[in-house]
Amino acid sequence: MAYLNKNQLLDIAEKISPHVHRTPLLRSSALNRLTGHQVYLKAELFQKTGSYKPRGMINALSALTAEERGRGVITASAGNAAQGLAYAANLLGVKATVTMPAAASPIKAEATRGYGAEVILHGNARECFAHSLRLAEERGLTFIQSYNNIPLMQGYATLGLEIIEELPVADAILIGVGGGGMLGGITMAAQACGSTTELIGVEPTGAPAMYKSFAEGKPVELDQVSTIADGLAPPSAGPLCYEVVRPRVREIALVSDDDIVAAMLLLMQRCKLYVEPSGAAGLAGLLTSAVTLPPNSTVVCVLSGGNLDPGRLKALLP
Amino acid sequence: MAYLNKNQLLDIAEKISPHVHRTPLLRSSALNRLTGHQVYLKAELFQKTGSYKPRGMINALSALTAEERGRGVITASAGNAAQGLAYAANLLGVKATVTMPAAASPIKAEATRGYGAEVILHGNARECFAHSLRLAEERGLTFIQSYNNIPLMQGYATLGLEIIEELPVADAILIGVGGGGMLGGITMAAQACGSTTELIGVEPTGAPAMYKSFAEGKPVELDQVSTIADGLAPPSAGPLCYEVVRPRVREIALVSDDDIVAAMLLLMQRCKLYVEPSGAAGLAGLLTSAVTLPPNSTVVCVLSGGNLDPGRLKALLP
Repeated sequence: MAYLNKNQLLDIAEKISPHVHRTPLLRSSALNRLTGHQVYLKAELFQKTGSYKPRGMINALSALTAEERGRGVITASAGNAAQGLAYAANLLGVKATVTMPAAASPIKAEATRGYGAEVILHGNARECFAHSLRLAEERGLTFIQSYNNIPLMQGYATLGLEIIEELPVADAILIGVGGGGMLGGITMAAQACGSTTELIGVEPTGAPAMYKSFAEGKPVELDQVSTIADGLAPPSAGPLCYEVVRPRVREIALVSDDDIVAAMLLLMQRCKLYVEPSGAAGLAGLLTSAVTLPPNSTVVCVLSGGNLDPGRLKALLP
Repeated sequence: MAYLNKNQLLDIAEKISPHVHRTPLLRSSALNRLTGHQVYLKAELFQKTGSYKPRGMINALSALTAEERGRGVITASAGNAAQGLAYAANLLGVKATVTMPAAASPIKAEATRGYGAEVILHGNARECFAHSLRLAEERGLTFIQSYNNIPLMQGYATLGLEIIEELPVADAILIGVGGGGMLGGITMAAQACGSTTELIGVEPTGAPAMYKSFAEGKPVELDQVSTIADGLAPPSAGPLCYEVVRPRVREIALVSDDDIVAAMLLLMQRCKLYVEPSGAAGLAGLLTSAVTLPPNSTVVCVLSGGNLDPGRLKALLP
């Protein structure tokens, strides 16, 4: 089943283009040497709000009815989705509310408020999610799921479109996986464009929801997760995401938190890119033996975001 | 006096072009908002070896006689010049030796060795410099001064050329100053191109050699320096650099180490760029009141490099 044809994808890309950056594909001879591949880095950390989220959020809010938008929107997020929703809502003149866990970074809460959203701090991640649903009910707000959402993935597909347009000869694209929204979007783009590039998801060993879903043949929910890559920490594979990606994605590879931090530090030291842990997962898959490709493959690693507090960075540094 | 005409500059740019990147001029709406200016970042941290040094080193080595090259070259450096010289020497098939202070970062020493140079650790910065001159004498090596050197500055001028070609309407370029080599190179480019863009040097309060030279009307040497921006820490303004920049540069502004760290953290958090302290000085001048410009000026800040050890970064984080 195709979720998007090429014309629809081009329309979405054009619609969101005034509000998002077309991010560059960067090279690094150091990474080529280290990996034995031709490595391209999709620098989505340079995107508005510091992650790929606005691409999807703008499209998801545009896909709502005027009545749904008029009621205002709400989501639950500790980070990038919060800023992405707030940014998109501000653009479209929609009132936005975001619930964040009580321990959320004050800087991220502040950035979200900076885009005009109301931020409500509440409980741990699970309690915060439940609180968001409750508030949506009580206040009559439209709840926006931050990955398990078709129009959202259709917006994320524009990230895949840019890669495929610029580097149609890529052998593989390595994509960090949390709930599966970004992977779903890039899958939609590959299908819409008739691309034969292999798509490979990379997930933290401490939050292997999509990995287990692939193994069990159905979307699974985890009892608990533990990873420093907060953007890849959702405790479930989105059922819609799973449905989109399963037929097309070659595999889901697993990497440890140590692998992710090593990739992140390498990106800082050698490529001078300030990437958050979640954004380094794809490259971590390539640097370890988690992802196997023929020598000298042309590989794109998606650097999905760069929102990392100095305090958290300090704790991660050796 | 003109040190370079436009044709000579274009020839140098063409000569080094296979070996250096044309680095991008990046935008940031966050910086525009914070400063009230139109800010462009010359992302020279993406240059080969992680700083602007190879532009000058390739040209400086090319300007030697075959006999001078044949004897091998040597410089003294704690960091970027070491890697720049080693990279250039490797390209041109010249034997390179670098003396580094005993406390130099093992990672930088390793990177310098990685380009094929012999690295000799010796004493503190002053002793290391003297040792370098002694070794040049003993071993018959050609000593390459890392800033007070006309062909070197002519190579650095290609950095200025790229800015002027891409953004001829810039009102000002803000440039970190150590010995004055980069500022000298950009000055040469502005003169060669007939640019009217204002050039402003930014120097750490703890190493104000060029600032004092401007005040006293002659190049001065400082008794001691103290700044976290090691690339801007030479204890003297190069006499040749002073001569080049004095007639053309509007002013030398001073910024504190705290200002520099604040600018560096802002570049990481908002622009996702892993800049070293020396590379953040220009922006620090704009963020503080050190540099005054009319509102909504078009300003280029040169991000000269991104070579920063995780250990040093950790010590700088709040």
